[in-house]
Amino acid sequence: MRIALGVEYDGGGFLGWQRLSKPGEPGEETVQQALETALSFVANTQVDTICAGRTDAGVHAVCQVVHFDTDVHRDPRGWVLGTTSRLPPAISIRWCVPVADDFHARFSAVARRYRYRILNRAVRPALARQYLTWERLPLDADAMHAAAQALVGEHDFSAFRTVHCQAPHARRDLQEITVVRREDEVIVEVQANAFLHHMVRNIVGSLLLVGRGERPGAWIAELLAGLDRTVAGPTAPPTGLGFLGPRYPARFGLPSEVTA
Amino acid sequence: MRIALGVEYDGGGFLGWQRLSKPGEPGEETVQQALETALSFVANTQVDTICAGRTDAGVHAVCQVVHFDTDVHRDPRGWVLGTTSRLPPAISIRWCVPVADDFHARFSAVARRYRYRILNRAVRPALARQYLTWERLPLDADAMHAAAQALVGEHDFSAFRTVHCQAPHARRDLQEITVVRREDEVIVEVQANAFLHHMVRNIVGSLLLVGRGERPGAWIAELLAGLDRTVAGPTAPPTGLGFLGPRYPARFGLPSEVTA
Repeated sequence: MRIALGVEYDGGGFLGWQRLSKPGEPGEETVQQALETALSFVANTQVDTICAGRTDAGVHAVCQVVHFDTDVHRDPRGWVLGTTSRLPPAISIRWCVPVADDFHARFSAVARRYRYRILNRAVRPALARQYLTWERLPLDADAMHAAAQALVGEHDFSAFRTVHCQAPHARRDLQEITVVRREDEVIVEVQANAFLHHMVRNIVGSLLLVGRGERPGAWIAELLAGLDRTVAGPTAPPTGLGFLGPRYPARFGLPSEVTA
Repeated sequence: MRIALGVEYDGGGFLGWQRLSKPGEPGEETVQQALETALSFVANTQVDTICAGRTDAGVHAVCQVVHFDTDVHRDPRGWVLGTTSRLPPAISIRWCVPVADDFHARFSAVARRYRYRILNRAVRPALARQYLTWERLPLDADAMHAAAQALVGEHDFSAFRTVHCQAPHARRDLQEITVVRREDEVIVEVQANAFLHHMVRNIVGSLLLVGRGERPGAWIAELLAGLDRTVAGPTAPPTGLGFLGPRYPARFGLPSEVTA
């Protein structure tokens, strides 16, 4: 039987999503390790999970989706409440849905969506500082939004891909990107069929240069066309980044928040 | 010279606002102590502050306002950046304005505003859990809002006042209270000329009983009229509570966020 879970986490205290290949030092845990430990306790047998999109150290998730296979019978409420009760405070299970055997958290997803929050004011944040990146120089959010539109469509995103990225190619379909200001915050939201390693943080890092007026808006289109990571902006910090979640075809019967 | 500051803080790690009468244990610090230590460093002499509204342990502030008197000359930017650089990460200075000598952070305020955030879903929060109170039973926010309107106006709020409250009387002018639902969150906002100790948390504690259907809406009006704290609901936890800030007459020339 295949089970899908919606998982929320505060990535601040974790070494990212992915299970470490060898045991970490005390205090060095990943979200996947914490989740599988809790699920294995509830199932009373080892549970291995596959996620929709790996997140880096310090990156949060509003709704990560995982699937796992099990012979153990628990009702969805049991999986949700039992697992959450065994998880550290920074992780909770939003929902549980039994799914068809052809559902795959990673390969069935038709889109992923991220949000990047930038607090744009003269002094650093105290409230919600765990979820914000701070930029003290004034940002022109409209200029960032206009420049970002060059990224929409199917392109080779090599210019925004870390050298550590293991994807076989760099073509991705970026479906939507918006940059809006809400009072002191500048919020970037971006949706693509899939993302390369550090792609969102590298895009935001270059958009910040446009927002501060250090580069013209047309520079983003030039970067994209140039395919050269070394001339793009720095990788923006992980703190402001949240994985809003993947989207799946409606036939899988998942909650509306993860249905395309 | 009198100086006013807007102060933002995450109350989670502090024993509330007020300076302790004797030195605390390591890790037991108050917001006022941390602020005065930083201000005294920048001024190079002891600085004592008076705030608009003391907050309890665990309660946050979007914009607390303090004033202090000093003979030291620094430009506002120097007070903001210098002090913030000496503060722990959970506190920052939003702004600094030199004010007339008759300005008083506490006595000049004509109103105070609080927000209480309740996450209303089956499982506890992982994200933003530092700023939310969790209620797993479904809440009827409309019923809470309707019941709360009985509190608007000038009344004796003895029913919502802790026995430790030191105010000479319990009459307060509650100017506005709203309860709205935004997706999974139920948000209570309340504004009054001033508040009694625990008044917001005690009002929210009783409104939660109405929201869960355990008491009728008319019960709030009965509690208010009865003046008896012992029959009202429990005090809601501090975690969800944030002091949005005070409001002052326009003649003091403070930022719009704290001007009536």
